[in-house]
Amino acid sequence: MKLVARIVSVCVSAVAAAFVVSTLALAETDPLPSWNDGTAKQAIINFVQATTDKASAKFVTPEERIATFDQDGTLWVSHPMYTQVVYCLDRVPEVVKARPALAKVEPFKTVLSGDREKISKLSINDLLRILEVTLSGMSVDAFRIDVQKWLDVARHPRWERPYTELTYLPMIELLRYLRSNGYKTYIVTGGGQDFVRAYAEKVYGVPPEQVVGTAGGTSYGYDKYGHPFLTKEPRLLLNDNNAGKPEAIHLMIGRRPYAAFGNSTGDREMLEYTKAGEGERLSMLLLHDDATREYAYGPALGLPDTKVGALTQALYEEARRQGWIVISMKNDWQHIFAFEK
Amino acid sequence: MKLVARIVSVCVSAVAAAFVVSTLALAETDPLPSWNDGTAKQAIINFVQATTDKASAKFVTPEERIATFDQDGTLWVSHPMYTQVVYCLDRVPEVVKARPALAKVEPFKTVLSGDREKISKLSINDLLRILEVTLSGMSVDAFRIDVQKWLDVARHPRWERPYTELTYLPMIELLRYLRSNGYKTYIVTGGGQDFVRAYAEKVYGVPPEQVVGTAGGTSYGYDKYGHPFLTKEPRLLLNDNNAGKPEAIHLMIGRRPYAAFGNSTGDREMLEYTKAGEGERLSMLLLHDDATREYAYGPALGLPDTKVGALTQALYEEARRQGWIVISMKNDWQHIFAFEK
Repeated sequence: MKLVARIVSVCVSAVAAAFVVSTLALAETDPLPSWNDGTAKQAIINFVQATTDKASAKFVTPEERIATFDQDGTLWVSHPMYTQVVYCLDRVPEVVKARPALAKVEPFKTVLSGDREKISKLSINDLLRILEVTLSGMSVDAFRIDVQKWLDVARHPRWERPYTELTYLPMIELLRYLRSNGYKTYIVTGGGQDFVRAYAEKVYGVPPEQVVGTAGGTSYGYDKYGHPFLTKEPRLLLNDNNAGKPEAIHLMIGRRPYAAFGNSTGDREMLEYTKAGEGERLSMLLLHDDATREYAYGPALGLPDTKVGALTQALYEEARRQGWIVISMKNDWQHIFAFEK
Repeated sequence: MKLVARIVSVCVSAVAAAFVVSTLALAETDPLPSWNDGTAKQAIINFVQATTDKASAKFVTPEERIATFDQDGTLWVSHPMYTQVVYCLDRVPEVVKARPALAKVEPFKTVLSGDREKISKLSINDLLRILEVTLSGMSVDAFRIDVQKWLDVARHPRWERPYTELTYLPMIELLRYLRSNGYKTYIVTGGGQDFVRAYAEKVYGVPPEQVVGTAGGTSYGYDKYGHPFLTKEPRLLLNDNNAGKPEAIHLMIGRRPYAAFGNSTGDREMLEYTKAGEGERLSMLLLHDDATREYAYGPALGLPDTKVGALTQALYEEARRQGWIVISMKNDWQHIFAFEK
């Protein structure tokens, strides 16, 4: 064996050995360490293996690998109130400063009173009016900065931690696991698209262009220096709930997802649409059944319904019937939050 | 030197040498071979080098690298009629078969007559009515398949070639050059989003989720077997022209582009919005000034205006004033179509 041939042979062997070692390491590393062994975890792993194995009849080409996640109650805590609603209520004093006449009319009068009991009883229409007023009238850039500043200081009343720490660790692992297998991960939220985009890249690793949400129109205009900018308008363009989810998925993505994750009636059509596609599809429904570590609610558990994140008995039964995999927070998750560890 | 150390040293040298060779090869290969040397080509190369060089003050992080392209008249021929309008006119007989009453009313009567003279004189409102009727009522999947079938058989009257061969080779090279430098390339078209998505991946390498266009609503429903699907509705959701372009860019992408390419008044705001961003930004305006190889039109050339792809004198002057780079088809492009070579 000549010297060059020997060197090449040794190089090739070294590279091959390194490859074998890293493959073994990968196989031995659990991609979902916060998940307990069980049906849910196994379903995820089976799905990923089947759709990424070229030899499998269920193989999905990389460009078709789309996974969509609801946010509130699926990626982070949505109790006792949607985080965005808390943000909007907190914004009321500033909005009233700019528009003092609002201080004398409902529902702003109630919000300004600070009476938690009364605030918690505001109607859906009152809330919509608050959202409309507090989420419009500023530039899209000013809005993003304001949300980011608020998230830095706001704290969840129960855990006294930033809302961005109340993301579910098992879901963060799932997002990463899917991405490391070539899936593009999207958030498809009933929450405001601009609100979620302000932190999704930092918190979930999901860039703005992969956040689909309820969205209002914007209008193009100029500042006093003639520089163009976009202003948020109080005009609803997309209501990203229920049938609005598959409709927005078509508008914003243009492909049917291969995997979808939700937790409430607002996610029903997205889970149904995903599962109804050809080939291997994964739809998963997260059950909030852990009163100790998080919350337990919904008629599916024989518990009273709540204002937010409703999981009805009908949806629970549909999950079973349609082959969606139910995730039990209590049984399937070893840890819920990163700060627990 | 011990054997292992020597082998490692040789391996490292071999890898380093391979790297140097490939870097040189890259530097020597012109990424834009169909572009003549000149201001336009140099502006593109300078922009890419400045924004991808970590040592440059103009460096742009990979996730921020967004480039947006108008389609009609920017990526492919839009004369003598927008391709999508030709498609819609061709679809009229089929639509009338399903809805016979339309045969007796205008503008469908004129379209069915086949009288080219009269068809070319249809008003904008007539055309909008034709678009509304021919682009709705079917499922999104059926529509995509129909567009793909049509593109297989339809031919451009001048070149007698499929429309998908009438893409501009220099722009295809530009799309690839930007992508190979970490840019996400988007199409932002006044044309129909679903129409362009039917072929953009194959023709431009742009996936559906990176095609933003004029879009109608869809509605979620079920077929007789209970399978969910989306139907295209005659309800305008996004008019992706003029100010609608930056507005749609915000809705669908959520970031201001670093580079934008257009050719007509419909692209004005997109070019303006892009160029007005902080740091290094590139806005380019394509001038159709090649009557021999393509077309020459627009008041910017002292030529009569046309129904489609208008480049007004005002826009041309604005380009000069705002520092947008004007691309002359005649002078900057060595080849226009791939089939010329």
